[in-house]
Parts: sequence; C-alpha cells; structure tokens
Amino acid sequence: MSEVFIDSRNVQFLLYELLEVQQLTEHEHFADHDRDTFDLVIDTANKMASELLWPSFIEMDRDPPRLEDGQVRVHPHIKPFLRACGEGGWISAQASYDHGGQQLPGTVMAVFRGILAAANLSASIYPGLTAGAAHLLASFATTELREQYLPKMYSGAWQGTMALTEPGAGSSLADITTSATPTDSGHYQIKGQKIFISAGQHDAVDNVVHLMLARIEGAPAGVKGISLFVVPNQRPSSDGSLEPNDINVASLFHKLGYRGAPIMQLNLGEQDNCRGWLVGEPNQGLRAMFQMMNEARIEVGIAATASASAAYHAALSYAKERKQGRKVTDRDPASPQLAIIEHPDVKRMLLFQRAVVEGSLALVLQCARYADGLEVLEGPERDRCKALLDLLTPVAKSYPAEMAIAATSQALQCLGGYGYCEDFPIEQYYRDVRIHTLHEGTTGIQALDLLGRKVVRGGGHAVMMLMGEFDSAIARAKEQPSLQPLADRFERATERVKSVLQHLSSLALGGQIDLFLADATLLLELVGIVAVGWQWLRQATVASEALSKQPTEADGSFYRRKLATAQFFMAYELPKTEGLAARLLDSDGLTLKPAEELFS
Amino acid sequence: MSEVFIDSRNVQFLLYELLEVQQLTEHEHFADHDRDTFDLVIDTANKMASELLWPSFIEMDRDPPRLEDGQVRVHPHIKPFLRACGEGGWISAQASYDHGGQQLPGTVMAVFRGILAAANLSASIYPGLTAGAAHLLASFATTELREQYLPKMYSGAWQGTMALTEPGAGSSLADITTSATPTDSGHYQIKGQKIFISAGQHDAVDNVVHLMLARIEGAPAGVKGISLFVVPNQRPSSDGSLEPNDINVASLFHKLGYRGAPIMQLNLGEQDNCRGWLVGEPNQGLRAMFQMMNEARIEVGIAATASASAAYHAALSYAKERKQGRKVTDRDPASPQLAIIEHPDVKRMLLFQRAVVEGSLALVLQCARYADGLEVLEGPERDRCKALLDLLTPVAKSYPAEMAIAATSQALQCLGGYGYCEDFPIEQYYRDVRIHTLHEGTTGIQALDLLGRKVVRGGGHAVMMLMGEFDSAIARAKEQPSLQPLADRFERATERVKSVLQHLSSLALGGQIDLFLADATLLLELVGIVAVGWQWLRQATVASEALSKQPTEADGSFYRRKLATAQFFMAYELPKTEGLAARLLDSDGLTLKPAEELFS
Repeated sequence: MSEVFIDSRNVQFLLYELLEVQQLTEHEHFADHDRDTFDLVIDTANKMASELLWPSFIEMDRDPPRLEDGQVRVHPHIKPFLRACGEGGWISAQASYDHGGQQLPGTVMAVFRGILAAANLSASIYPGLTAGAAHLLASFATTELREQYLPKMYSGAWQGTMALTEPGAGSSLADITTSATPTDSGHYQIKGQKIFISAGQHDAVDNVVHLMLARIEGAPAGVKGISLFVVPNQRPSSDGSLEPNDINVASLFHKLGYRGAPIMQLNLGEQDNCRGWLVGEPNQGLRAMFQMMNEARIEVGIAATASASAAYHAALSYAKERKQGRKVTDRDPASPQLAIIEHPDVKRMLLFQRAVVEGSLALVLQCARYADGLEVLEGPERDRCKALLDLLTPVAKSYPAEMAIAATSQALQCLGGYGYCEDFPIEQYYRDVRIHTLHEGTTGIQALDLLGRKVVRGGGHAVMMLMGEFDSAIARAKEQPSLQPLADRFERATERVKSVLQHLSSLALGGQIDLFLADATLLLELVGIVAVGWQWLRQATVASEALSKQPTEADGSFYRRKLATAQFFMAYELPKTEGLAARLLDSDGLTLKPAEELFS
Repeated sequence: MSEVFIDSRNVQFLLYELLEVQQLTEHEHFADHDRDTFDLVIDTANKMASELLWPSFIEMDRDPPRLEDGQVRVHPHIKPFLRACGEGGWISAQASYDHGGQQLPGTVMAVFRGILAAANLSASIYPGLTAGAAHLLASFATTELREQYLPKMYSGAWQGTMALTEPGAGSSLADITTSATPTDSGHYQIKGQKIFISAGQHDAVDNVVHLMLARIEGAPAGVKGISLFVVPNQRPSSDGSLEPNDINVASLFHKLGYRGAPIMQLNLGEQDNCRGWLVGEPNQGLRAMFQMMNEARIEVGIAATASASAAYHAALSYAKERKQGRKVTDRDPASPQLAIIEHPDVKRMLLFQRAVVEGSLALVLQCARYADGLEVLEGPERDRCKALLDLLTPVAKSYPAEMAIAATSQALQCLGGYGYCEDFPIEQYYRDVRIHTLHEGTTGIQALDLLGRKVVRGGGHAVMMLMGEFDSAIARAKEQPSLQPLADRFERATERVKSVLQHLSSLALGGQIDLFLADATLLLELVGIVAVGWQWLRQATVASEALSKQPTEADGSFYRRKLATAQFFMAYELPKTEGLAARLLDSDGLTLKPAEELFS
C-alpha cells in the first residue's frame, strides 16, 4: 500500500498490548476467534482501503452525488464496495450467529471501520449506516421484520439509515412531527419530512431501509411520544417483490466536505401511501434509537480520528521530503537546506497531530472495549463497563471530533501554501473532518448529555468509577520510576477535574441548574483532555513496561516514540486544563444574561 | 445594505473613541481631512462592499479563475471593481499628494479594506496588492520608474504584485535563485520561477507589475544578496506602448478557498527576454521588501478579522431566527421552542466570535495607528510608535489569522448541520479564512520573527515599551471601580508574560538558542492573547467612561455590550494564558530531539 492511513504497529499496540482484546476470546461469545482472525480483519481493511476506497477518494469529492429525475446517482465505486462488504461479511461482522453474523468484537471492527474511514470517509459511511440500522432491527424488531430485512442489508444489497432529523427538529428530538397512523393491516401510515438523511436513497443499492422516528397519533407530547419504525423506500410485498413506498427525495444538500455521501431531504407519504412498521414498543422509540445513536457517536469518534490520522501521515511524509530553511543557529546560507521535519516547530505540529490521533484512537477503542465487555461480562464487571461506556460516549465522540479538526488544520499548516492547494489531499481531509462536531449530536448537545445526564446519574456513580480508573492508571504508572513526572502531571489534572465537578455539584444542589450547565461545553473539553491524558498515561505505562523486556530494535523504537508522544501530550496538551478549570470555577453567569442585552 | 459585514457602530467606536484618529488631522500631513472625510471613506466602503463585491462573493468561488491559452480569466466583476477603486482614488488613498495620493490615514484605510475583505476576500486583494506594490515603488524607485508605473497602478489599469516565493524558497527567502543579469541598457535580464504569485496575470487589467526579489549575478549568498526589481508582464517602451516581457503562467493553483483570486506559478525569461529594473540599492532588496511585507502582514490581520466578522454576523442573524429547543429547566414539550440565541452555549459561541473579531480589529487598527504615527510624529514619540509597530506586527498578523479560523468555525457550528451546507455562506468563509496562517509568512515564521528578532532587539526595548502600555491601560482602567476585576485579571496575565520572557531570556543568555526558540509559536500565542486582552481592557475603559456621561439609549446599549464582551474575553480567553505559560516555563527540549527518534 502506497498510502498509510492508520499506523499498523500502533493498531497492534492498542488492540493487543493496551486493551488486550485477545482476552475476549476466553469468553464463549468470542471463542471462535483468535488473534489471527483479528489480524486478518485488519489486513482486509487495509486491503479494501487501498484497493476499493482510496482510488476514488478525490473523485467522489469532485464529482459528488447528483439528483436526476428523482434518483440519487452516486459514484460507481460505491456499489462494488458495498457488495464486497456484504460478501466479506463485514456489515454483519458484529452480529450474532443467530442473525447471520460473525460475532467479531466491536473493538476490532472499530479499527476495521476506522481504516476504511481514513481512506475515504464518504464511502465508509454507507456500510457503517447499514450495520447500525441492522443492529437496531436485530435488537428490537420482530422475527418477521428481521427475516425480511436483515439478510438483504447484510448482503449490501439494501442500505440502512437513521432517519431522525426534521426541518423543525434537529437537536430537539422532542419536536418531531412525522406522524404514524395505525391501520388494520399491521402497518402504520407515515407522513412527514426528514432532513439530513445520509444515504437516504441512491442507485448503488436495490432498496433503502430507514430506521425512523415518528409520532403515533395521540401519543404524548415530547420525547415520551416518539416511536421507532422501519420504513423502506421500496416495501417488500408478500411475494418478495418490491413496490414503491411513497418516499421522495426533495433535495440533496451540497456540503463543505464529506461530499461523496448523499445527504438529503425526504418527503414521506405525500400520496398517503407510505407504510412503516413499528420496531419495539410504542412510545419507546427514542430509547431504542439511543442504542444506534450511541454506537454512531463512537463511530464518529473513530471516523474523526481516522481523517486526522490520514492527514497526519500525509503531513509526515511531506515533512520528511520537503527541504526548507536551516537550523536557527546556522547562519551559513551555503549550507544545504534541511528537511522541514528537523524544525522544532514542525516537530511540535506533527507530535500534536500524533498525540491527538493516537490518544483519540485509544479512547474510542477503550469505549468499544467496554461495549464488548457488555456482551460477555456479568455482575459488577458488566455494570462497570456500562457506567464507563455511558459516561465516556459523549467524550469519545466530541474530543476526537473537535481535536481532529485542529489536528487536520495543523497537518495542512505543515505543508505551508501547498496545504491549501488541491494538489495534496489534506485540504479535503480538512473539509471532510469538519462534519463530526455537527452530526450525531453537536458538541453542545454532547456536553449537556455528559454533564446534565451522565455525570449526575446515580449520584455521580460513573464519575467515581472513572476516577477509580484514573487512580489505577496513576498507581500502575508510578511503578515505573521514569513515569513519575507524567503520572504526577496527570494526577494534578485529575484533581482539577474533581474540584470543578465539586463546584458544579454545589451549583446543582443549590438549584442553580442554568448556571450548573452554562459552561457544559467547557467541562466536556476539560474531561476530554483528561480522559485522553488517562489513555496516554496507560499507553506510556505499557510502553515503558515493554521496554524493560528487551524488545526488538523496531519495537524499542516504537515504544520510545510512544513515550515521547505521551510526554508531548502531558507537556503541551494537559496544561490546557488549567485555563479551563479556572473558567469553570468562575461561574459568573455571563451567558445567562438575556440575549437582547448581549447582542444588537 | 441587507448584509452586515463589520459592525458600523463598533468602527466608529474604534476609530474615534478608542484610537482617536481625529487627532491625526491636527498634523499637517493629514490636515486636509476631518471626521466627515473619514466617515465618507467608511460609507463608500460599505457601498462598494454591498454593490460591487458581495453580489459575486459566491460566484467567484464556484467559478474560479481559469487558465486558457496562457491567459488567466477572472470573474467579470473584477475589472469594473478595479476601475471603481482607481476612479475613487482608493488605490492611492494613502499615498502622498506628490505621488498623486490623498494622504488618508492608514487606520481609516485599514477599515476601508477590511469592509471590502469582509464582503469578498478574493476580490479585495486585487487593489490591496496594487496599493502595496505602488507604495514600495513610491518609497524606493527612481522618479522615472515611479512616473512610468504609479499612475497606471493607481488608476486600477495595472495590477501590482509581490513576487517572492520560489519552488525551493518559501519560508526561507535566503534561498531565492531567480537571477538578474545586468545589461548596458539600464535594465537587468531576469530568469527564474516564482510560485504562489497572487494576481500575477489576469484579464481584468492591461498589465501586471511585479515587485520581485532576485539575485544579481555575483551577489553574496543568502539574504544579503537579494535585490528588488520591478518586472512587468508587459514592458513599457519609450513611446508608451507595451511589449511582452517573456513572463508566462506555468499553472494556476486550485485552492481550498479564496478561490476568486488567481494564484499562479510564473516562468520568467524562458526566452532570455525578461527585463527588470532595480528598485533601491543592489542587495538591499529584502529590507525594502520588508516594508511591503510588514504592511501586508497587518493587512492579513485585517482580512482575517473581516471574514470572521462576516461569519459572525451571518451566525448572529441565523441564531436570532432559528427556533430549536427550550430552556434546560423547561420540561414542558408543549411550550414553544426558543430562538437558539437564548441558549447559553450559543451565546458563548457568539460572544467568542465577537471577542475575537472586535479584539483583533482593535489590535490591527492599533498597529495601523502606530504606522500613521510614524508619518507625523518625531523624536521619542515616533520611536515609540516604531518600536511597538515592529514588535506587534507578527502578533497582529497571527492572532487574527489563527483565531479567525476558530471564530469562523464556531460561526459554522452555530448553524448546526446547515452550517456545513452551501446554502449558507459560512462554509465559504471557513474555507477562505484558512489562508491567513499561511501567506505572508506562516505562523511559525511570525513566531521566530517575534521572539528571535523583535523581542530581543535593543535589549528588549520594545517589550518594555509594550509592558509600559499595559501598565498605563491597567492604571486607567482602575480609575473605574467597576473595572477593577478585569484590570486585575489582565494584570495577572501580564505577569505571566513577564515570567515567561524572563525564563526565555535566561535560556538565550545561557546560549541555549535552540531551546529559547523551540516553543516560539506558543509564545506568539501567549503574547497574542495578552495583546488582545490589552485592547479589551482599553475598550472596556473607554466604554465605562462613556457610560458615566449619560449616553443615548442606543449608545448605552452599545457600551454595555462592549463591557460584556470584554468581560467574556477576560473570563474565557485570558485563562488560556495559564496553560501556555506553564508550558513555556517548562522547556524540556522535547522538540529538539532528532526527527528520527520521534518519527517512524
């Protein structure tokens, strides 16, 4: 492979040395697999990335989907890619044997999807969405619906989607108005509009299956009256043939990046002939959908990290080749120019990118590992996984989403003026990666989820669990004398988080809910830095332990680079918690003033 | 005007209340002007922005310049716009009466250009480049050259450019190889390649005049052997007709944003028939060019601020109209949705943008005000302006350039998914604004200029001047009891800068030059925040003083908003200096390690 998207040695490190996914195979659910299977999955991802996705990375951007005569035309490479995903069993890979899947761990499949996303974000979301929708059907739909839809979706012949957003209901799902009217025939009549639906209709598949939120007539107002439906573009009749289901594409959105994926507005039931089938219990739709949304949020974290990783490798490659300037102490204009990677500021920019990429990847894979734990553990161990996964999901979505933008911007910066030009792929990564703070819940929404729900739930139970994880990581690190300074720095940052949370709790307990939540986004940022710092301390510890065991020369170099990146994170990124904590302890209520006082 | 690009009331505040540009008219050089003239300049800018520039803002992006048969075709609106600039006297506005100018203050003209840049960055650079090139000719060229070129450039018929960069010499100008061979006819034969030349050839003008760096045969190596030439695409013959000067467009760069401006590679003297004329003394070219570069750096600060301002106003307008969600304490789904501007997190994002925009504008105009001071002051007052302008130029370039990207990104974020779509202009601002950390010296180059040159020059003379300005601002603020908390916060931030500079000085004095400069970019960031904090303290002081003098209701609201934004800056942005200072006091030398230890 000519292009590097995600560092393979680092993947090995994260999966087997840090997260020890091979331990999962000791449990029955994953017992058919071993490290060889997992390596094969990763190898396949790299092969698909370089052969099926990367070749059309730029083309899909320059020639985005078009709406012609009501039909969305996508890049011709999408269809064979989806079929290859189906044939390889990659859409169903995590599903149970019962449902036709392979029961592969989510942690491994997260890497698989990350590699695809790094090579071509737009293309990678088609099978990703189908897998998420299928998983939701597998969890909540009747046997009949499952048998009708899952095989087609797993084969890549049918596309799956999430259909939540409406013109008047984006962040506020309580305000969904799409209606579902019961009929005597077991289905509901669906009527409404959905917007920003990714892959909502296109010509690389035979059908599209929407997992859609709608309101059953007479349901309670707000989130308590939302139900989940399966609503196909073409509905299967009893003989297996397909007939149109009165869903039309009103328009395509033209976007800054991520342009190879068609995002559209759908009109449902304009002819009163759009049928949907209930999935799960009436009015329990949001709860079910949250399963898919939470998975999707982790996926966003992975995808964001993936683009930043690809951008980092492009910048690294450029920085090694491009000659410009000399050491600041070299005043001899006749001396040869240096490769720019020798300039401290370029090293700083590259280390920043790697610290973000490898730190984010560790955090999202940690979450995937907790999710895998839910499959196989019981009792307190399972509860621990559940609490930490719930707490960290908004963090594992938002830190990568926000920081991948910054990292990709630094990758672009490494190339100087060339970074701004279409001759290099980084400008496209920069456009693509900007989506991730917006979809699957904006950063502001994640922040309210973290502080308003996850932190306070169960009297701060999950936060205490996380602090316990931090303490364990510190204790283990301190067994390595050379890690004492890193562990100390990290420990001080955790103290900052504790002080801030105590301060915020006192506001909440005092009934000042508005003030408690006012700077939730900054708390999310603070927790994100510390959570990634935790992953860096853990990585440094594993690397340091491995170094003491006479590794090969190549491994030794890898572990030393890992330690240098950990040092970078603690030295350059962790101090940002100081300013954030100072602000969060302030709570002056400035943003609670009425808008008319603040804005003209 | 339907679109607001830059807040007019704030412009009045900055020019007349904060910077008191009307005082300039007490000096002979500016004596023909008064506040009415200045207001007319601003009004004209707003009119040109809305009538000539904004209508093609999007078109110029979607239909960028094309290279056809060696000729660069630009948008048809560029030609009438350039002619209007010429006829209105806007290209020569700052030039002296001797040279056909109007002797308008640079501070006022900076606002003029900012308003144009906010409406259409790409279009705005054509006259801006010509004005800069003409200014250089006016300062350094012979009377003959001036008479030959200036009238055509000032009329908008001829384009001016800066031609510095070459394929092997971007950040490192020492490595320029374009050659200039003397002839007996007074001109030089020019041969070489220049890249990233903005507006280097196009069909909206009759000729393009490059202010070009080249090396006279036998000149010393490095920066001491660089000379400045005027090299036209068409050379004027003695009868005034134009003949081709052997300059060809090799290619156009296709860019992320800022797409309406053609950036190109030029081949010079392929037929050995490209003539250039020396400007200034041989081998003194870089010194002369620095005049233009320093002006251009301030211009970048203005242009970056301008795009962020336009993006802010677009986001503000959307946030007032878009209804979504309810107060966090409102659990009634039947209550009407709020305009999103009522959400604290949206207010925070908007205040962040305004704090960046108005703070950056104050800083760049402060620099322009110092430059105007150089025209009219003498003795120590002139020296003070010179020292502060030199010191602050890299800061006034980089803080706006870096922070305008962040602010525009937050503007995009305010719109949620819509911000990512081409239906709104913010995605274009986001692409356009990304150029500014790259051109006219990257942020890394500005940082080396600040710390490696400006800070150390004269034993830290300029830094002491700046600290004196900070102290004066603090003292004046403290006369308003209500400003005590802001002044205290700012004072603590200045202490942080002092500690860091002392620490860095000790490294430099100890001969550890590499370590001294290793984190120069972070020092630039630190100084940027504090310099803009200084401008916010000054603005808060003026606003507070004005509030005590029974202002009109509209003015009172404006001053209170100004105070709220100052409070925001001190509460949310200034704390970032804590983490930066912690890092800068560390100096662990991590980025001084050889690249092969850090990167695979």
